[in-house]
Amino acid sequence: MVTPLLDEERLDVKGLNNLIEHLISGGVHGLFILGTTGEGPSLNDSLRIDLIEKVCEIVEGRIPVLVGLMDSSFKESVLLAEQATKLGAQAVVIAPPCFFQIGQDELYHFVDQLIDEITLPVYLYNNPALTKVSFALESAQKLLQKDKVKGIKDSSGDMIFYQNLASYTEASETSLFIGPEELLMESLLVGGEGGIPGGANIFPQLYVDLYSAGKSGDWQQAQELQKKVMKLSNTVYQGEGYGAGRVINGIKSTLKHLGVCNDYIAKPLRKAGLNKVKQIQQWVN
Amino acid sequence: MVTPLLDEERLDVKGLNNLIEHLISGGVHGLFILGTTGEGPSLNDSLRIDLIEKVCEIVEGRIPVLVGLMDSSFKESVLLAEQATKLGAQAVVIAPPCFFQIGQDELYHFVDQLIDEITLPVYLYNNPALTKVSFALESAQKLLQKDKVKGIKDSSGDMIFYQNLASYTEASETSLFIGPEELLMESLLVGGEGGIPGGANIFPQLYVDLYSAGKSGDWQQAQELQKKVMKLSNTVYQGEGYGAGRVINGIKSTLKHLGVCNDYIAKPLRKAGLNKVKQIQQWVN
Amino acid sequence: MVTPLLDEERLDVKGLNNLIEHLISGGVHGLFILGTTGEGPSLNDSLRIDLIEKVCEIVEGRIPVLVGLMDSSFKESVLLAEQATKLGAQAVVIAPPCFFQIGQDELYHFVDQLIDEITLPVYLYNNPALTKVSFALESAQKLLQKDKVKGIKDSSGDMIFYQNLASYTEASETSLFIGPEELLMESLLVGGEGGIPGGANIFPQLYVDLYSAGKSGDWQQAQELQKKVMKLSNTVYQGEGYGAGRVINGIKSTLKHLGVCNDYIAKPLRKAGLNKVKQIQQWVN
Amino acid sequence: MVTPLLDEERLDVKGLNNLIEHLISGGVHGLFILGTTGEGPSLNDSLRIDLIEKVCEIVEGRIPVLVGLMDSSFKESVLLAEQATKLGAQAVVIAPPCFFQIGQDELYHFVDQLIDEITLPVYLYNNPALTKVSFALESAQKLLQKDKVKGIKDSSGDMIFYQNLASYTEASETSLFIGPEELLMESLLVGGEGGIPGGANIFPQLYVDLYSAGKSGDWQQAQELQKKVMKLSNTVYQGEGYGAGRVINGIKSTLKHLGVCNDYIAKPLRKAGLNKVKQIQQWVN
Repeated sequence: MVTPLLDEERLDVKGLNNLIEHLISGGVHGLFILGTTGEGPSLNDSLRIDLIEKVCEIVEGRIPVLVGLMDSSFKESVLLAEQATKLGAQAVVIAPPCFFQIGQDELYHFVDQLIDEITLPVYLYNNPALTKVSFALESAQKLLQKDKVKGIKDSSGDMIFYQNLASYTEASETSLFIGPEELLMESLLVGGEGGIPGGANIFPQLYVDLYSAGKSGDWQQAQELQKKVMKLSNTVYQGEGYGAGRVINGIKSTLKHLGVCNDYIAKPLRKAGLNKVKQIQQWVN
Repeated sequence: MVTPLLDEERLDVKGLNNLIEHLISGGVHGLFILGTTGEGPSLNDSLRIDLIEKVCEIVEGRIPVLVGLMDSSFKESVLLAEQATKLGAQAVVIAPPCFFQIGQDELYHFVDQLIDEITLPVYLYNNPALTKVSFALESAQKLLQKDKVKGIKDSSGDMIFYQNLASYTEASETSLFIGPEELLMESLLVGGEGGIPGGANIFPQLYVDLYSAGKSGDWQQAQELQKKVMKLSNTVYQGEGYGAGRVINGIKSTLKHLGVCNDYIAKPLRKAGLNKVKQIQQWVN
Repeated sequence: MVTPLLDEERLDVKGLNNLIEHLISGGVHGLFILGTTGEGPSLNDSLRIDLIEKVCEIVEGRIPVLVGLMDSSFKESVLLAEQATKLGAQAVVIAPPCFFQIGQDELYHFVDQLIDEITLPVYLYNNPALTKVSFALESAQKLLQKDKVKGIKDSSGDMIFYQNLASYTEASETSLFIGPEELLMESLLVGGEGGIPGGANIFPQLYVDLYSAGKSGDWQQAQELQKKVMKLSNTVYQGEGYGAGRVINGIKSTLKHLGVCNDYIAKPLRKAGLNKVKQIQQWVN
Repeated sequence: MVTPLLDEERLDVKGLNNLIEHLISGGVHGLFILGTTGEGPSLNDSLRIDLIEKVCEIVEGRIPVLVGLMDSSFKESVLLAEQATKLGAQAVVIAPPCFFQIGQDELYHFVDQLIDEITLPVYLYNNPALTKVSFALESAQKLLQKDKVKGIKDSSGDMIFYQNLASYTEASETSLFIGPEELLMESLLVGGEGGIPGGANIFPQLYVDLYSAGKSGDWQQAQELQKKVMKLSNTVYQGEGYGAGRVINGIKSTLKHLGVCNDYIAKPLRKAGLNKVKQIQQWVN
């Protein structure tokens, strides 16, 4: 879920209400806040806490709320997890710390010890393009064996790695989610449990339907819906910017055009430019 | 300057006192705290503020104190800069935000607007291996033209880029510092102003002497001292770990052996292993 | 197809006969020789010509023979294509030249002008990990519009790029093949035409069956076969070596164990070590 | 030395004569042909042999001629070395094979065995940006211990690695050369033996003078000359193209403007565009 903002330090509370109702009525099965698309690392501590509080209030337990722990500081992540627990979130999602270059040894110990300090259920989050380290298959499996750990989201885009993860999560009682929505159909075919697609901010039902088609083995239907997902990706996620920044400004720009929420984006990312906004508007209309 | 720690959330205050007196009596011209070697991104907010306060108290204005702003959040960096001002630091050092992949456009605007929110003098800090973006020559020059900006530290290791930077900083009234101490002699030959070497935590006078030799054109003396710097690098900065983590655990391990301060290192980094500690002890003794 | 060798400069002709009959009786629809798995860039000119000649003789037109043009020299590629034409091959496969770092402009002109010098039908071959440049979607589409160009093999492993290619090749009269066999099932689901799997050297029928299952929409059958492909990959393609080298030595080692052909591998690659050979033997038996 | 060409398959013999006389009268101590700047990997076999023959004829033993072995095929490199011996070259220069991704083990064995098949003295050539593998310090040292091996050229641009190499070559009887001319002055300060600068094609005396200044310890003179080298680099090596291609088309364009030789550049590289040609002409005049 994107974080609707008025400026660098204030939530767009009205937009947040709209967005959450839009998502729930679209049928999504849970909310992941303060992740990459949620600009978690760009928001300051008090804003993060404010967001968790408001989201939990609005959701009122209708679907689970998962809170991203993406700070470069171990202690800050512990503090945020404590707030998430207190404010009523259902789980946390742990990404590797993004600053230092680390190996599997450092990664494993960081995550393992962070889990020990947390009371909520935990999901892992693999995003090597941004954190500079990828969970090795062995590290992921060892961490997934811990009672508190319920699953893993993989945004590596490496579908060979994903299949190897899937053969483990299928055999154990854990869940595997795909990051990039362009790979959602494929991920379901190879044994993934579901996805955490940014585009669901815009058209939640499209992604829920694609999920359901894949889960029920209706691959012809899935192929049709997947083409729509690719069309969205090739329209909304292109243009100025890089990687995740280009995805987020596209989603926020589209949501503003649809009247859902404001399109302010926290620094260092920048709003979609005029050309991109025009392309998005032509495509939506 | 490394950050002497007792554990994840407490400073080693006695060690901090020792270290600062060790550095000042070794002749260093200033202290850069909360940088990469200072594990800035691994420390939580209150610990960062605690460190700034204690350092400023101990230094008592004898040399300038520079504070690193390395958070992934713009607003957190503004808040830390305000604390640095209040607590008596002399300057801040701005690194690009480390999480999102960004281009020059995003980088320039982030730093430019951060500078506008800060009252202290500013230095830039280029460290592309850790922040995933390098200041382009044009971006650096444009930012160096701002009144508040006094110079730039380059840890890219790219000595062609460094020479191009030097030809600009020599012509303007700004300073250019080298990050990796293994390049300190060369950097002085091509027009750099000085260095911010991690090894100076251990043997401050060695680096001060090398700096003075280069500045006075005594390159024969510089060559001899540089060989000692390389020896330290090949002993202390090798072994377990990656990149900066391997440097920091080597420095802390040596400082502990020398009785200066504790060797606790914040997560995700890990202490030097036994083999490395032995190698360091043999070399120091 | 791997290239059975006795040593650095001689073909294993008996093994070559065995291998080709093994492949044809396994049902493969064509042979790609002198590609990456065929160690094309490691073989000298006369050996390359010798191989084309022998393969065409043995195959006797039963299935098409495609010849890889992977030299760093434009002129050498022209000369090899002339030999392929003369000796009876059905098509050539063009990879970007592997030495210099080039952009889309250089890539497009190199391939475009090479096509103009060739009389045989042409396939493109995208393998950025080895050639240091990836066909941009626009470059690929422009080249696929040329009459002589019949299709493209993509070994990038980037399944988002692959879907975008597929939406173009499906609409035009061109073919899209997947390189990494671990992605074969997925590639068929998103609109690919087929695959060029290295593992088919070992068990050709497995890959033909997987292809047929995907083409006929029997995804349950495809999922079962794909799991076998992953098992082969996780056994044969692991161990000593890097990337393609690790794949090739695994295939050659297995083929030797099965009595198909010799396992000599041209420099710089190296034979599978004892541990790997043992693991392979246990798995095959 | 660049390779003057009329087109993809013919030498510019008149230009070659001019260039060699220009270089010898400029004081260079040797010629490295068929290297990266010599477009070795882009030229076909017969053209390579033609070049060696003509160069040896023109030079007539006045300075040593070193021949690059940069083919992806071991056997082709052996054959080229035999020709170089027969035609009167003084040494060969071995680069890692550029196609496959390899580790130190494969690299060491490839080079070690290639040396065994060669009768001429050998230099190593480290160019990881193009060959995708860098000689580890240990591999380089082990190979430099072989009798035939006289030295190493390092184009990695990594000046920390270079210093470690220098401490070995200074202690043994081997030579260390720097690739990128922008690092020539620094390389001499840290113990390098000399350089193989592409810009010496244009102004050989500038580089000879810089070399002499460094060797005699006249660093003030060296600093002045180094600034001219940087000026050339920032004029001639910028603009269209990437990496080495951008350097080579700049050199060839300048040589054409100076009336030395033709500016044809073998595919996949492309001639300097009009803007770049204009900038070069303004700077030379």
